[in-house]
Amino acid sequence: MASTAVDVKELPAAYVFVADMPGLTHADIKVQVENDNVLKISGERKRDEFVTDTEIKYVRVERSAGKFMRKFNLPANANLDNITAACQDGLLTIIVPKHPPPDVNRPRTFDVPVGSASLSNQ
Amino acid sequence: MASTAVDVKELPAAYVFVADMPGLTHADIKVQVENDNVLKISGERKRDEFVTDTEIKYVRVERSAGKFMRKFNLPANANLDNITAACQDGLLTIIVPKHPPPDVNRPRTFDVPVGSASLSNQ
Repeated sequence: MASTAVDVKELPAAYVFVADMPGLTHADIKVQVENDNVLKISGERKRDEFVTDTEIKYVRVERSAGKFMRKFNLPANANLDNITAACQDGLLTIIVPKHPPPDVNRPRTFDVPVGSASLSNQ
Repeated sequence: MASTAVDVKELPAAYVFVADMPGLTHADIKVQVENDNVLKISGERKRDEFVTDTEIKYVRVERSAGKFMRKFNLPANANLDNITAACQDGLLTIIVPKHPPPDVNRPRTFDVPVGSASLSNQ
């Protein structure tokens, strides 16, 4: 299982997931939504063979390799229909927009007309 | 200090260094040879700001960020004049060719002429 570091940021209008994917392109990565509330990122990081030469001797092995999978619970206000994902320079960025908050609880500000007549005249 | 995993492979004609550099391009990375025998890889991994919005709240921070530096001793047969480095998809690959081994120690195979006269005739 390859390690895959992920940052999660909350913006006013979206949640942003940023994952390290060194050596991978968009074709190597799968992004899915499960059960309407789980964001799943999966794929496989292969130890790249620079050449097909059989005479390769590994002097040092530090890079993580193998299959990887990460899951994140999505908040109730996540807009699942407009999720976008892009991979560039080995960095996967997933943007999950938020649904706007319901209007019913929004504090209202409005003008009350002021008439010239006094209230006692009515 | 950001963590930077590096694999080192030995091939028949070269040493190959492969380093994870997610989110970085060649402009962000410095590769140097020090004192004719040390390969130095350095740079800085910044926590990318997806937007310049000040209202960013980090929900999860796993990705490594900050300056990084790695040094590797190069073997005596490294050909320092022909080192090449390239960065693609967040993966830095440095190729250090080997000098060919000196000929003096190479086992020799050659013909000794066989004359028709016997040695006792000389």
